[in-house]
Amino acid sequence: MKKDFDLLSLGEILLRLSPPDNERIVRGETFQKQVGGAELNVVSGAALLGLRTGIISKLPDNSLGIYAKNRVRFCGVSDDYLVYDKEEDARLGIYFYENGAYPRKPSVVYDRRHASFCKINETEVPDSMYANTACFHTSGITLALSENTREVAIDMIKKFKAQGALISFDVNFRGNLWTGEEAKECIERILPYVDIFFCSEDTARLTFLKEGNVKEIMKSFTEEYPISIVASTQRIVHSPKVHTFGSVIYSAKEDKYFEEEPYRDIEVVDRIGSGDAYISGVLYGLLGCGFDCQKALEYGNATSSVKNTIPGDLPSCDLKEIDRIIRNHKNTGIQLEMDR
Amino acid sequence: MKKDFDLLSLGEILLRLSPPDNERIVRGETFQKQVGGAELNVVSGAALLGLRTGIISKLPDNSLGIYAKNRVRFCGVSDDYLVYDKEEDARLGIYFYENGAYPRKPSVVYDRRHASFCKINETEVPDSMYANTACFHTSGITLALSENTREVAIDMIKKFKAQGALISFDVNFRGNLWTGEEAKECIERILPYVDIFFCSEDTARLTFLKEGNVKEIMKSFTEEYPISIVASTQRIVHSPKVHTFGSVIYSAKEDKYFEEEPYRDIEVVDRIGSGDAYISGVLYGLLGCGFDCQKALEYGNATSSVKNTIPGDLPSCDLKEIDRIIRNHKNTGIQLEMDR
Amino acid sequence: MKKDFDLLSLGEILLRLSPPDNERIVRGETFQKQVGGAELNVVSGAALLGLRTGIISKLPDNSLGIYAKNRVRFCGVSDDYLVYDKEEDARLGIYFYENGAYPRKPSVVYDRRHASFCKINETEVPDSMYANTACFHTSGITLALSENTREVAIDMIKKFKAQGALISFDVNFRGNLWTGEEAKECIERILPYVDIFFCSEDTARLTFLKEGNVKEIMKSFTEEYPISIVASTQRIVHSPKVHTFGSVIYSAKEDKYFEEEPYRDIEVVDRIGSGDAYISGVLYGLLGCGFDCQKALEYGNATSSVKNTIPGDLPSCDLKEIDRIIRNHKNTGIQLEMDR
Amino acid sequence: MKKDFDLLSLGEILLRLSPPDNERIVRGETFQKQVGGAELNVVSGAALLGLRTGIISKLPDNSLGIYAKNRVRFCGVSDDYLVYDKEEDARLGIYFYENGAYPRKPSVVYDRRHASFCKINETEVPDSMYANTACFHTSGITLALSENTREVAIDMIKKFKAQGALISFDVNFRGNLWTGEEAKECIERILPYVDIFFCSEDTARLTFLKEGNVKEIMKSFTEEYPISIVASTQRIVHSPKVHTFGSVIYSAKEDKYFEEEPYRDIEVVDRIGSGDAYISGVLYGLLGCGFDCQKALEYGNATSSVKNTIPGDLPSCDLKEIDRIIRNHKNTGIQLEMDR
Amino acid sequence: MKKDFDLLSLGEILLRLSPPDNERIVRGETFQKQVGGAELNVVSGAALLGLRTGIISKLPDNSLGIYAKNRVRFCGVSDDYLVYDKEEDARLGIYFYENGAYPRKPSVVYDRRHASFCKINETEVPDSMYANTACFHTSGITLALSENTREVAIDMIKKFKAQGALISFDVNFRGNLWTGEEAKECIERILPYVDIFFCSEDTARLTFLKEGNVKEIMKSFTEEYPISIVASTQRIVHSPKVHTFGSVIYSAKEDKYFEEEPYRDIEVVDRIGSGDAYISGVLYGLLGCGFDCQKALEYGNATSSVKNTIPGDLPSCDLKEIDRIIRNHKNTGIQLEMDR
Amino acid sequence: MKKDFDLLSLGEILLRLSPPDNERIVRGETFQKQVGGAELNVVSGAALLGLRTGIISKLPDNSLGIYAKNRVRFCGVSDDYLVYDKEEDARLGIYFYENGAYPRKPSVVYDRRHASFCKINETEVPDSMYANTACFHTSGITLALSENTREVAIDMIKKFKAQGALISFDVNFRGNLWTGEEAKECIERILPYVDIFFCSEDTARLTFLKEGNVKEIMKSFTEEYPISIVASTQRIVHSPKVHTFGSVIYSAKEDKYFEEEPYRDIEVVDRIGSGDAYISGVLYGLLGCGFDCQKALEYGNATSSVKNTIPGDLPSCDLKEIDRIIRNHKNTGIQLEMDR
Repeated sequence: MKKDFDLLSLGEILLRLSPPDNERIVRGETFQKQVGGAELNVVSGAALLGLRTGIISKLPDNSLGIYAKNRVRFCGVSDDYLVYDKEEDARLGIYFYENGAYPRKPSVVYDRRHASFCKINETEVPDSMYANTACFHTSGITLALSENTREVAIDMIKKFKAQGALISFDVNFRGNLWTGEEAKECIERILPYVDIFFCSEDTARLTFLKEGNVKEIMKSFTEEYPISIVASTQRIVHSPKVHTFGSVIYSAKEDKYFEEEPYRDIEVVDRIGSGDAYISGVLYGLLGCGFDCQKALEYGNATSSVKNTIPGDLPSCDLKEIDRIIRNHKNTGIQLEMDR
Repeated sequence: MKKDFDLLSLGEILLRLSPPDNERIVRGETFQKQVGGAELNVVSGAALLGLRTGIISKLPDNSLGIYAKNRVRFCGVSDDYLVYDKEEDARLGIYFYENGAYPRKPSVVYDRRHASFCKINETEVPDSMYANTACFHTSGITLALSENTREVAIDMIKKFKAQGALISFDVNFRGNLWTGEEAKECIERILPYVDIFFCSEDTARLTFLKEGNVKEIMKSFTEEYPISIVASTQRIVHSPKVHTFGSVIYSAKEDKYFEEEPYRDIEVVDRIGSGDAYISGVLYGLLGCGFDCQKALEYGNATSSVKNTIPGDLPSCDLKEIDRIIRNHKNTGIQLEMDR
Repeated sequence: MKKDFDLLSLGEILLRLSPPDNERIVRGETFQKQVGGAELNVVSGAALLGLRTGIISKLPDNSLGIYAKNRVRFCGVSDDYLVYDKEEDARLGIYFYENGAYPRKPSVVYDRRHASFCKINETEVPDSMYANTACFHTSGITLALSENTREVAIDMIKKFKAQGALISFDVNFRGNLWTGEEAKECIERILPYVDIFFCSEDTARLTFLKEGNVKEIMKSFTEEYPISIVASTQRIVHSPKVHTFGSVIYSAKEDKYFEEEPYRDIEVVDRIGSGDAYISGVLYGLLGCGFDCQKALEYGNATSSVKNTIPGDLPSCDLKEIDRIIRNHKNTGIQLEMDR
Repeated sequence: MKKDFDLLSLGEILLRLSPPDNERIVRGETFQKQVGGAELNVVSGAALLGLRTGIISKLPDNSLGIYAKNRVRFCGVSDDYLVYDKEEDARLGIYFYENGAYPRKPSVVYDRRHASFCKINETEVPDSMYANTACFHTSGITLALSENTREVAIDMIKKFKAQGALISFDVNFRGNLWTGEEAKECIERILPYVDIFFCSEDTARLTFLKEGNVKEIMKSFTEEYPISIVASTQRIVHSPKVHTFGSVIYSAKEDKYFEEEPYRDIEVVDRIGSGDAYISGVLYGLLGCGFDCQKALEYGNATSSVKNTIPGDLPSCDLKEIDRIIRNHKNTGIQLEMDR
Repeated sequence: MKKDFDLLSLGEILLRLSPPDNERIVRGETFQKQVGGAELNVVSGAALLGLRTGIISKLPDNSLGIYAKNRVRFCGVSDDYLVYDKEEDARLGIYFYENGAYPRKPSVVYDRRHASFCKINETEVPDSMYANTACFHTSGITLALSENTREVAIDMIKKFKAQGALISFDVNFRGNLWTGEEAKECIERILPYVDIFFCSEDTARLTFLKEGNVKEIMKSFTEEYPISIVASTQRIVHSPKVHTFGSVIYSAKEDKYFEEEPYRDIEVVDRIGSGDAYISGVLYGLLGCGFDCQKALEYGNATSSVKNTIPGDLPSCDLKEIDRIIRNHKNTGIQLEMDR
Repeated sequence: MKKDFDLLSLGEILLRLSPPDNERIVRGETFQKQVGGAELNVVSGAALLGLRTGIISKLPDNSLGIYAKNRVRFCGVSDDYLVYDKEEDARLGIYFYENGAYPRKPSVVYDRRHASFCKINETEVPDSMYANTACFHTSGITLALSENTREVAIDMIKKFKAQGALISFDVNFRGNLWTGEEAKECIERILPYVDIFFCSEDTARLTFLKEGNVKEIMKSFTEEYPISIVASTQRIVHSPKVHTFGSVIYSAKEDKYFEEEPYRDIEVVDRIGSGDAYISGVLYGLLGCGFDCQKALEYGNATSSVKNTIPGDLPSCDLKEIDRIIRNHKNTGIQLEMDR
């Protein structure tokens, strides 16, 4: 039976402010104004590919909250589960992002403490959503932001799971939010519920203290927990403006690894959110294509690679465009230089 | 004996973000990026007119703090008494400002809680400043922001006073920071130390429960407290884009009121900070022109009126320009259309 | 029984391109990029006020169509009834708009011929919408654009009416699309179905050849046709940058005229869409407030007046903001200068 | 017999740099980049109305000179008589312009000394131009810039006159270039050659020491010199953003004054060049409409008034647009709000 | 005997709209506004190098047509043969261009149907032009746009040829305008008139079904038709931001191939129009340098390569700059890093 | 005993105007507005790293001079020794800069003649500065600008030297200001006073006619003159957007060369001022780190390399950021992709 949402996610929506081009935070007279947030990035990418998605979040009841809501809708993501903070100290978390150019690294200043999202309460969203949703996704950021968001997230995972939803989880480790030990301990509480698990090789080693090669590590998670799919991205940062991107997916049921040629020498315009875009693509491949791991891999890699060329956190490519990019990636013959 | 600073002020420095032109916070893709803050506005206006000024404040030790420091210096204000917050929760207070156009009022969204300034500590600035300064200015905003800033401000008032500095104080009542009763009670604690007192007629009535006409009210403050000068602005808001501005100054020593024709039908570009610019002009007239109240009035009115035509919180007119505006204001003959 | 949509509308969505500020179409290097269209403007304004609305339209299946769809969603309008033109000659209608400044009038260049909307077909949208909708709105522009859109509109009016929806119609006469006689003949075909009728005094005289004062004219429509509500705007254009706006509403059932003080000397930023915003407000007053004509009048006048201060065709004020503007408009006492 | 050019002019072309909107020269991060110059403004306005015009000037042989040439052509003005300075010290004169808003006046900073134009030599342009041209125009600015340009201008006036061209001259007195006495003495050398004379009432009084009312003054010039037409503009500067503009033309042959209602409360966007635009319109009325002084008046007033609404020095309205503005100005009945 | 024009071309002028930088058509709030069109690009590039050129085209008689005319003149191209469409359905063709960044390709959306150019009629331009022109150029796009433009183009080719003009033709095959077979059949009708023929290797193979290596193919055209010069570009697209560009020219009379080292790793800013710029350079080399094929090659390669670094369709380099680029390209010694 | 300034410099401050991104001087509608100048660049970079610095210069007493002063202060450089030119011909020197993209080189147009700086007089600055300063720096540009600046510079060098300041000198040869012979002759007059000498290998060969490898050349200067430190940069320009940068420092006292791996494939955003930034870093390493030549090398290379990624002449990195870049440069292990 078809559910109302293919994918719901719980996560903070942030105001992103960034100087134009190569300008700096310490100077200049304008900021580009955008919204982002790991989970929003995932559901908006998935919505573009065709999934019906929504975001569970809490926004301040002021102009900035309305702005964030408008952007959510612009992306085709449902705002049904956005709730509003009418208290006087309501605020939208902010982050400031500055582009890099070798030898200057991209840099981020966070101003996300005390955000309204940290006060979200399960009772603010209707219980009907648990049964209405095919897959629930969240990330380690939501777990790390505050004790409250952690408990809300874990509760939601359990309730969604209980109603038959798949659970997708991205470790997305951020050293400025919690320590590796805290992350490990907390995430191990939820791994028993997780079906689709996103974890980079580095994080697996440093946080989960895994050893062996990347494939052994990926498989080991499925041996310890009832995880069906483990996906691991592989990014090479040649410089802030040039990356190479690929990934490996392991399917426990099939006991099989899926790989393809990475996208080499991506012309990076804005790297933020490309990891989240990967998850969009993978989830589309799984949820929208009958759990075809090869497709998940291809959609994940293409959606992530092309996200690097899009300003802002949020992806902007629909299925037609991603399919074209995948075809070009596989094509070894003559290619048209332009889409027209 | 000449002191190092003509004017020091204690106050919060805020990041100001505003959509360009008539665009709205709930939409659009850029913010203009500026700094402001009532006390900074005052000292930067006074610095432009020729006083040697500085700002006592606390900034986060990150790119935004550096940006604020750079802007302070750009204005010719000393950054000697800026201190930096290296804690993880350091943040620069922010406010979002949207222009109005009748019948749409200008609007402000504040996000200034938990700012580093609220953690400022007197021990962070050198005691030498008390003796080095001819006049200390602060406002009701600093008193209202937090219990800590209130106590720091009151202590500094006492210490500056003890070292012979004049004390200038602007009520600047903000209903979103405290109630009228709180304001009245607190400000009455400091009025015994105040030499130069800025209070609008409305605030005098609503907050201090004064009665009578504006002149009676102004005089009454000097009867209750050892205040030398009371200044009161008179603004008529015809629409968000058209104001009329004038003021009255009362000198207790001379027992005399100073007035002049208001500036009528000012073509308002950005009204924020025009009240603070008034104080700059008055303080310049007093501190820089041998306590000439007529000059204080004229500098106050001109500096404030022209600030309305300048984008951002901060004034940008030097003495030469203000003198020219005053001459034009008094001139009833033929005027050149342009300065060239 | 509650229906899924409070308001659906049929109309063309146009790409609007306009030089920034006072720049001209014949020069310059950028265009502001927006979407608009009389019916979209109406439903987006109504959505902001709280009605559940949607737009029935046809867009090209290319990047410009996706752009238009994204903007529709940004406004909170449902895109459920947007259909896509996959033919090779699919195109989005365009108009170019240049601001005025006395003695230069605002000017418009249309490039809307052959647009995909003109090819819209009733079979492309599901029949279920007719029963799901409380009110259907369209305008004379849709009737005038092409023979096909005229027939589709008339058919939809009949089908919505048959399913119990109210019919709202705005004459919106455009001399560059058809003649007054054509308009009169066509609109008289649909007036028997119309419940809420928007017609300016000038159009009533010039197109419908009405005589008498505006109230007599308004009433006469309800005598000839089973119309419940007639609304007529009254705009005085002092200059391209200064307008005065008011209106009259006549309720046939109550046999009563509703009027209030106009909004005088509006500081016009962008006049386009202010007539449509009026309709948003009136429909909100009727559909959302139990057919309270006084509220309809107040919401109509406020929503239209403030639209003049917003760049682009589309309104951007929610109910809270409009309620504040109405309060200020009625308030004769002291007013705060700013919303903060 | 038809000549190749209706109007040639000799004058400096300047790079104009101005901060956007209400921003200031002392701050900000961008300049708008335009070209201007009194004589170029005149010929480009006249070209837009339909005259075949050209500009005689000297530009540096570098990218800025090419930029200026490109802009000249953009306006439809011939660049046949532009010559290039290949010397190392070649430079394009510059001026910086800042908009005003009451009580802040517009202001100009000149950086035009040592410009290549000051080195122009008659031998650089072909002698054929003297016979090919119906009217030659220049202004007091060219006379004042340098001794060389003065002598070149006077020589050209004589040569054009000798070949049967009409001579048009605008006093355009600039106190920062020369004194009133210098101007009077120099201009009196050329008045014997002038056919069409532009002089404001103030300049006539202050520079030429004329007395009496404006009409008497205008007539007196034609009594002293063989001048056919005297035109005098009348501008009231209500504020930097609101002007009223009208003029009087006196025809010596007809001994008749031409006047009409001024354009009141012009919404000024950029006042620079509006005096030059007046000359464009008058010269079009004379040279293009069989010396019809009524038309000259109407074209002059309309072209000048509307120039105030156009950013930059250069006008941008063609004949169709000016004719529409004149019709609207004379129309006392209902007016359309928009051109569409 | 010298003719008035070195080069005339027949072709459509398009409004080009493109999001800034890496922004997308489906998002964002501005478009860059430019003009372009294959034939205009060719003549404007040639004008910059020193040829006297003009464009034969038809524009709508509205603000957009005026804008296009102004840009044509800005480039130094004569607008003598621009004609205007005063009908109600007059329109300027438009195309929307979005930059690429690997793995996102550049993309184009065309909206050029029903453009005024398609209605151009030979009788609108004076017959005198045929004898006044040294070379006439057009491209396969003009042939493909409509039956009318095809017949006008073929007629003009014949008339120019009859009056002794050289005929230059660029195949410029566009699969979205016609099929390869249609192109082949049509172009073979005109090849008997062509003197200078531009055809890429791929097009020669796919459209003209040629076999053999590129040199054999080039020569074969001159064997079948009385073509003097065949030029073929060789572009390697490493990524949307990195290209390598070179070409081969074959002179039938000399039976000789001209080649040089390609420009490697061009830093592509805007690739559009670089093929047309190549033609500009080659035609300058032929028409302006006594048919020197080596110079044609060098000017073609340099003009095209550098066009890739210029935003917009239109080139902007004059002869001095191209000569400098050619010298640098040939120079194997120390090079200055900057031109100053 | 600690002196008031670690570093003072004498040099011209220029207004820099540059088209945005890849736009050209010959086209476009805006210029980016910045200030620069070799010596200002040096002291502002050094101020960012922590030295107390000031600039000795002369500015026009107009809005542009104030703008320049404001920018100087923004950088943290003292404006104590700025003097103002109140004469009518006062002007700020200007240069126009256009970015390059292969095969288009960056290009510069200078308009710096007759600048107020050329009129600077030693008596305008207080003699107290000579004793108050640890190091004085100037460059060959100041020597070359005018006879007056040359004599002032040489006099100042002698006076600073006499008071015990170190003398730092950068040859910075500019062929458009003087010939190699003039430079050689003049610089040899000051080399007897120089302690820290910056000279590139090419300049050493071409101007000073040195022979041998770079190390031999560097050492030879110290053998001929009492120079302590010679620093020589080594830049490889792969293309306008890709450079490699390294340097060698020779310490005469230690008779030792300092080198490290160059920064390879720098992603160049704006190359101007990167040579000056090198000097900032070296002087910080020497003056701020106890004459540690290894640190001087590392600070010089890092500060210069990262300057290439910053728009404008002026650096913007503080010590914390440069230290991080040096650590990353030396780090051969895993690197974080972003600073957060």
